[in-house]
Amino acid sequence: MREKLTIIKVGGKIVEEEATLRQLLDDFAGVDGHKVLVHGGGRSATKIATLLGIESKMVNGRRITDEETLKVVTMVYGGLVNKNIVAGLQARGINALGLTGADMNVIRSVKRPVKDVDYGFVGDVEKVDASLLSDLIHKGVVPVMAPLTHDGQGNMLNTNADTIAGETAKALSTLFDVTLVYCFEKKGVLRDENDDDSVISQITRAEFEQYVADEVIQGGMIPKLENSFEAINAGVSEVIITLASAISENGGTRIKK
Amino acid sequence: MREKLTIIKVGGKIVEEEATLRQLLDDFAGVDGHKVLVHGGGRSATKIATLLGIESKMVNGRRITDEETLKVVTMVYGGLVNKNIVAGLQARGINALGLTGADMNVIRSVKRPVKDVDYGFVGDVEKVDASLLSDLIHKGVVPVMAPLTHDGQGNMLNTNADTIAGETAKALSTLFDVTLVYCFEKKGVLRDENDDDSVISQITRAEFEQYVADEVIQGGMIPKLENSFEAINAGVSEVIITLASAISENGGTRIKK
Repeated sequence: MREKLTIIKVGGKIVEEEATLRQLLDDFAGVDGHKVLVHGGGRSATKIATLLGIESKMVNGRRITDEETLKVVTMVYGGLVNKNIVAGLQARGINALGLTGADMNVIRSVKRPVKDVDYGFVGDVEKVDASLLSDLIHKGVVPVMAPLTHDGQGNMLNTNADTIAGETAKALSTLFDVTLVYCFEKKGVLRDENDDDSVISQITRAEFEQYVADEVIQGGMIPKLENSFEAINAGVSEVIITLASAISENGGTRIKK
Repeated sequence: MREKLTIIKVGGKIVEEEATLRQLLDDFAGVDGHKVLVHGGGRSATKIATLLGIESKMVNGRRITDEETLKVVTMVYGGLVNKNIVAGLQARGINALGLTGADMNVIRSVKRPVKDVDYGFVGDVEKVDASLLSDLIHKGVVPVMAPLTHDGQGNMLNTNADTIAGETAKALSTLFDVTLVYCFEKKGVLRDENDDDSVISQITRAEFEQYVADEVIQGGMIPKLENSFEAINAGVSEVIITLASAISENGGTRIKK
């Protein structure tokens, strides 16, 4: 029987503010068993870029990453945000190791081909080294993954944190019984966007499609759920969409096959 | 018999400029056997701090690290400089892993006590986990160490790169036959500062003291050599002070017991 592994993805807002970060680290430290943390950092990147006089351009919610922006995200995601989390977890007795995809070649990606949009130095994940991550995890190390990969030719690449979490979960699902938790600012997928308590507690692919047809589920939640079903189809046992402050609770929306 | 290990420390200037970095990575990739790279990044930190409107204050060549400056060095050393080196080494077939002291608790330090000067968030090294580094090295991983440590209470701390290199060399000398290479902008310790070819090819403690008494060796070279002799006394086999572009050659100044 495969051992359990929980992969938790937290968005920028939570890890970028002192109080919410502290709470998250306490909650994450309380999660039993093997675990991996994947973080964002977009708000800090935008803030630092602005201070440096670099304009942040977003298309379809994704950052256009020119050469200067790549330096900013490498600093902010790989340095500032990642190391703060790592130091915070070490203080809580968690043996955290900060990783970008370049470190030990753990996530190799390819620069996104230019079609309608030139996203610049953005990487689409090609390969996650599950065996390496598994070895670390079995040694009690907790990987803390920044949303950065590399192309194997010397370039760092900006890669969406949801994608890092999803691809890592899929790769590790051959070796572990993986639960993937996407944290965000709501209690889960809502039936009524004006009612924070209208959480859909469980959702199947067929139900999801019906909710989309009925326009109950809209906008950014659609790709999040598409990713979730893709993860489930690739062998991930369960995907949970929930509040960051509720990662150790039994709430949120559960996505099952 | 202990296996050989080469620990190479390169200063900021070399790793911060595209052309010299490329050359360094080629040279480092060419170094045989087990190896570790320790890097600085001070010039970039100063540049980014200035752009962010943060004044860089130096006392005795050391950076006063207030809260805002700590964020800058964490970004620049742990993110920008470190990950560029890691990606560059991966492209050269070297299985690099970027580390700060917080990652896997590899270097624990204590915040420097305030005496005459309050250096702020600066860490004095307390413990280097030689066994962990040795395991990584034996697996073919090449640690790339940023000049950052942590205090185990959730704070990153700024730590001089020469110190990181020296303390790491000392800790690993119980497990390896360690050569420590300090790279800088000269061919070695010079007899005549106006003659770049007047390299002192080998130096003992007694000779060093005589050179200092004669004012042949002055300024920043004195603490560098003090550190070197300390490393030798603690078990490091050899310390070499040389040009960054000559790490794979047989030049420079050799410090022996």
